[in-house]
Amino acid sequence: MSTTVRAWGAPGAGQPLEPFTIERRDLRPDDVRIDIAYCGICHSDVSTVAGEWGERRWPLAPGHEVVGTVTAVGSEVTQFQVGDIAGVGCMVDSCGSCEACLAGEEQFCTVARVLTYGGTMPDGEYTQGGYAQQIVVQEAFALQVPDTIPLPNAAPLLCAGITTYSPLLHWGVGEGTRVGVVGLGGLGHMGVQIAAALGAEVTVLTHSASKAADALRLGATDVVATSEPGALEAARGRFDFLLNTVAAPLDFDAYMNTLRVDGVMCNVALPKEPFSAPVRTFTNARRTFAGSLIGGIAETQEMLDFCAEHRIGAEVEVIAADRINEAYDRMMRSDVKYRFVIDTATV
Amino acid sequence: MSTTVRAWGAPGAGQPLEPFTIERRDLRPDDVRIDIAYCGICHSDVSTVAGEWGERRWPLAPGHEVVGTVTAVGSEVTQFQVGDIAGVGCMVDSCGSCEACLAGEEQFCTVARVLTYGGTMPDGEYTQGGYAQQIVVQEAFALQVPDTIPLPNAAPLLCAGITTYSPLLHWGVGEGTRVGVVGLGGLGHMGVQIAAALGAEVTVLTHSASKAADALRLGATDVVATSEPGALEAARGRFDFLLNTVAAPLDFDAYMNTLRVDGVMCNVALPKEPFSAPVRTFTNARRTFAGSLIGGIAETQEMLDFCAEHRIGAEVEVIAADRINEAYDRMMRSDVKYRFVIDTATV
Repeated sequence: MSTTVRAWGAPGAGQPLEPFTIERRDLRPDDVRIDIAYCGICHSDVSTVAGEWGERRWPLAPGHEVVGTVTAVGSEVTQFQVGDIAGVGCMVDSCGSCEACLAGEEQFCTVARVLTYGGTMPDGEYTQGGYAQQIVVQEAFALQVPDTIPLPNAAPLLCAGITTYSPLLHWGVGEGTRVGVVGLGGLGHMGVQIAAALGAEVTVLTHSASKAADALRLGATDVVATSEPGALEAARGRFDFLLNTVAAPLDFDAYMNTLRVDGVMCNVALPKEPFSAPVRTFTNARRTFAGSLIGGIAETQEMLDFCAEHRIGAEVEVIAADRINEAYDRMMRSDVKYRFVIDTATV
Repeated sequence: MSTTVRAWGAPGAGQPLEPFTIERRDLRPDDVRIDIAYCGICHSDVSTVAGEWGERRWPLAPGHEVVGTVTAVGSEVTQFQVGDIAGVGCMVDSCGSCEACLAGEEQFCTVARVLTYGGTMPDGEYTQGGYAQQIVVQEAFALQVPDTIPLPNAAPLLCAGITTYSPLLHWGVGEGTRVGVVGLGGLGHMGVQIAAALGAEVTVLTHSASKAADALRLGATDVVATSEPGALEAARGRFDFLLNTVAAPLDFDAYMNTLRVDGVMCNVALPKEPFSAPVRTFTNARRTFAGSLIGGIAETQEMLDFCAEHRIGAEVEVIAADRINEAYDRMMRSDVKYRFVIDTATV
């Protein structure tokens, strides 16, 4: 038994998205059903549809920045009631018993983590994402969305928000930390706001000097225009923490050298090219390169509450479903400030 | 005014070492004069003499693993007396007032750090190393060598000891930490002993399966023979901390993948090839790559005291000075267990 709902997705790798229908499972005792109101468009969606992130079953509806209203709850659900505003991020299941899960870091579960779309549940269900009218999800993977954040602005927090919040917290960014955010896009514009709210001194490093005013408005106190010759060299030894949100090829060594002693560069973007830098860049100042992947469910809730407290949301352009393909094209040209969000009433 | 002393060094880049004489400055108020008893041969010496680490002035006496007896102290010296056993490591000066120096991490002083050989002091003195009868050094850069460590075994602690001790301490290696030491040479055999003394569970990863018995004797509880196909894949997700002491090219990604969530690989060797690995290797498990460089002076003293307490010393082959070139050749073939130490009475 299941419910047929409308969705938008790709009929095959590299193909334009189009409307189709998907099945949502009937409620299990620990499930909640959410009428989706908005779903953000993440670069992961674009990469997955392009076929760059491996094989998927088609058709596939992307979307893992989901917010909406709870319309039904299973008999064992305790944390959600009908009418609650709820969200779903990048994961909808994990084993629950491995070291990562027990640590509240389900994103690192290698036993049975299931992504919100394009993943396979233990019973064989192939997951379909949030470019859809409804989603059914275990309550353990649903988030409470504070009502002080407008829903379109809240949706991208479920991926872009937690992806930047988690490493900033993990590496202890706070008062006095000199943070550089590399790239001012969907991820970067969240990173700037969150790092500034944490009390850090935030600099945006961007090749688009035109974004300087936005960077300052979002909470940065300085901008390094990386397209200017010598700009990175002039920033040598300056930052404690670099959050790299750029998936395009970078001169990693030049960025690493903007770190102070014990500085950390953390990638949250996934470039196709490997990371590479001379070992001396590391030894000279005990520098570190690292990567971070979204965040755990409890941490995602913490992030939502933090954003509500600090009045932080994504800056979005709300679109109807029939403009998804245009949005994908514009994202390839970085022509979005700063996140497209689908009004799923139009799906 | 100065004192002429015998030394061994290279007359030029890439040339065999030979005896010559060097000048040691007259004692300043804050200097100590040390009659050198033993000086270890570090791979840095070989690389420097080969001309691989940049231009130097010639002739140059290498050597920064120096132990001997204090024979004279300046009028303002308070921490050393004539007759003390003292050591000199990789540095003989730094600015003393930058952030790194104030943190006791003189190795990261970029203002005025002076290496023990091939460096230039503020007054223009070009530093000559420990393959010599004597050295004159500020007391602030001299170490107290506990008399419970035999001098030949103590000498390599001044570089190989602190180079491995510092990152192990910095990254909190201790009881319960699963440490992998990559390479069992001069650095690696110190890393194994120190990590084991810290309470860690130590595995040696070596391409020389013949070193397994030594690895276990030195404190490891397991050995991964990396020359066996599939050995690294079988160690996937196993270690909290990898100490890489190998300067030869490595498949960095394969080693990075032996790290658990939040695992750290730290290079203390300086390969010519850049570090390279896919970004996904980092994001998948929040892994980190880092580098470390010797350690500060206070930390070097702490390391010497730790080694004395735990009866740790380098395993050495003591040689006369006229065998230095042979030793260099053997080091290129990894034919040493585990450090050559020059008996400087033969210089």
